[in-house]
Amino acid sequence: MEAFRKPPQRSKEINYVACISPASEAVSTKGTLQEPTPTQKAVFEQLASSQDSANHQRGPRFVPARSIPVPSTVSPLLQSAIAAPYRVPAWNADPVDVAGWKALVHNLGAQTATATRELEKHLNITREDVVINGVKAFLLTPPVVSPESKNRLLIHAHGGGYIYNPGEAGVMESVSMAAYSGIKILSVDYRMPPDHPFPAGLDDCMKVWKATAEANDPKKLGLFGSSAGAGMALAMILRVKDEGLPLPAALAIGTPWDDLTETGDTFKTNEWLDNVIVSYNGYLNRAASLYANGRDLKDPYISPIYGDFNHFPPTVLASGTRDLLLSLTVLTHRKLRRANVDAELHVFEGMSHISYVLNPLAPESRELFTEWVKFFDKHLDR
Amino acid sequence: MEAFRKPPQRSKEINYVACISPASEAVSTKGTLQEPTPTQKAVFEQLASSQDSANHQRGPRFVPARSIPVPSTVSPLLQSAIAAPYRVPAWNADPVDVAGWKALVHNLGAQTATATRELEKHLNITREDVVINGVKAFLLTPPVVSPESKNRLLIHAHGGGYIYNPGEAGVMESVSMAAYSGIKILSVDYRMPPDHPFPAGLDDCMKVWKATAEANDPKKLGLFGSSAGAGMALAMILRVKDEGLPLPAALAIGTPWDDLTETGDTFKTNEWLDNVIVSYNGYLNRAASLYANGRDLKDPYISPIYGDFNHFPPTVLASGTRDLLLSLTVLTHRKLRRANVDAELHVFEGMSHISYVLNPLAPESRELFTEWVKFFDKHLDR
Repeated sequence: MEAFRKPPQRSKEINYVACISPASEAVSTKGTLQEPTPTQKAVFEQLASSQDSANHQRGPRFVPARSIPVPSTVSPLLQSAIAAPYRVPAWNADPVDVAGWKALVHNLGAQTATATRELEKHLNITREDVVINGVKAFLLTPPVVSPESKNRLLIHAHGGGYIYNPGEAGVMESVSMAAYSGIKILSVDYRMPPDHPFPAGLDDCMKVWKATAEANDPKKLGLFGSSAGAGMALAMILRVKDEGLPLPAALAIGTPWDDLTETGDTFKTNEWLDNVIVSYNGYLNRAASLYANGRDLKDPYISPIYGDFNHFPPTVLASGTRDLLLSLTVLTHRKLRRANVDAELHVFEGMSHISYVLNPLAPESRELFTEWVKFFDKHLDR
Repeated sequence: MEAFRKPPQRSKEINYVACISPASEAVSTKGTLQEPTPTQKAVFEQLASSQDSANHQRGPRFVPARSIPVPSTVSPLLQSAIAAPYRVPAWNADPVDVAGWKALVHNLGAQTATATRELEKHLNITREDVVINGVKAFLLTPPVVSPESKNRLLIHAHGGGYIYNPGEAGVMESVSMAAYSGIKILSVDYRMPPDHPFPAGLDDCMKVWKATAEANDPKKLGLFGSSAGAGMALAMILRVKDEGLPLPAALAIGTPWDDLTETGDTFKTNEWLDNVIVSYNGYLNRAASLYANGRDLKDPYISPIYGDFNHFPPTVLASGTRDLLLSLTVLTHRKLRRANVDAELHVFEGMSHISYVLNPLAPESRELFTEWVKFFDKHLDR
């Protein structure tokens, strides 16, 4: 883990080759065509014929049941993540009442908090409980704050469908980011449903942003988050614009849940393939209902993809080819580009939703965080 | 089609909002949760349970048979492309002999040439047959060459699995690019199998590059291509580096077939979903065999992803979420980034392989070409 302890290098000096293990580099061994056996050929031809029939008319695409191998094109650590069964009980949690939700959130949070503390220890990250403008938050400090970043700060909104990851369970992504960036992180422990639906969480994040942007030069501040955390960050920018507050210098958005309706092609194409969220009907629909609490799901403060992206700060986005929210990521990227925002997209082979948050030590996760760090380093003042 | 006839604006002035039809913008109508009926809920729970069982062990991912709707998140023209049946006979062509291949290539080429001539007429593009250094090519001139591009030229390597699109059938992508860029295009009509396997086509492209780079300032030259054309362009750069020739100023790479072995997760995850290539076992395996003609498929001049990407020119890449070659696109992007190349990725909702080449008038295709134009405008000298 020595690499984590080194202060991060400046953008130009980051060695991307070193960020990836040889196992996931294409290796130039002999490549020969595997001629199909007559049986394989017959099986394929029968499937092709039935697929042609099932798709002979214009309309929905029929795809057959399949067993999809773990790809050879990623690192062993990412292969291990891809091979894992669906996450139980999180993926299709369906508690019968508020008490059931609270118990579930508490139990999952305790598991995640344990893993987070282990990661903090492993990466030598210091965590401090703080209260900013009346809102609970965590300040994470890397073992070495890099010299160019000593006046910089990144604000973090955690993911978890606006339901999961209260308290220290919410800082796992921040721990990785602190380690990879050499920048201090302020992670907001915003209020969540069932007790505190929208707009409580957004209100909390706005309070933290206001106080932080007053006490610091906003040009030295970045904002980041993944999943619901990315949706929250985008909603914050909309509200910051509406309220005439100063914008952060840059934004990092991972696999954004910025549309709480089931909108986007990969909600269907990657259903049952993404092993983290698995299906919108697993728990996202219930999380959406608990968060919006009867409000219009297309309110831009709830589903910020419906908002106005003009004058957004420079934004880097990330997703994976198996991500249920790949469509939302690329739709967000496109809408930012159409609004003339400096927006940069990175998509990683085989990753499901928030794979890099759950598997921070995989070389591809490190590569993803390093892209975000490069982007912040480019856009944040020193 | 008035927009095509206008000279393209400079990068900063390109209006991305105008590039997309309102139908594909997320519209802020009321969003409400569709509560599942008890029957829907029971069906989902049964499927979830059987999926949990099928995936309870670490390993391949089992996905069920599904009917996937045409997404609401794209323009009507792209919806129409997504709804189309698989392309017959191209997708699973399997001629029994060389004569059969030649007849197929000829017949498909004639169809494509007709469509290409219609597009040329529609976009008011002038085409000239030329011979460069002994190699046949086409020079395409837009109705108005934009002032900043009057000394610029883009070299084009066409796609078609190194088998399809001889002669004028190969210029369809160039026609669109000429219209969207206001830059002259030189499209190489390189030799192809069965008569001329590797390295004939690459030799031809290199001859054109050498002569063009001698007669022009290479800083004013760009290179682009999609599918096999993208693989060819990447192989050209490897060989240009090996031979110490001057590099083009920038590269545009669409959904690259830069690994002729079936390598990359989306060859499986997007199999039967992509309605253009459909499956590697459709015809790509046969095309690979005809092109390589017994040589090592992992020879970097055949599968350039196995080559050294250091010192590549700035590169913009594009793919779609349903693209069978999405993995190759993102793996190529990542490898370029790790080699510290200025590489930019754009992924489009719902697009299958080369959707933008086949449907050049869809607003998303225009948006994709416009990104490439912006990139060339940024990196090519005037």
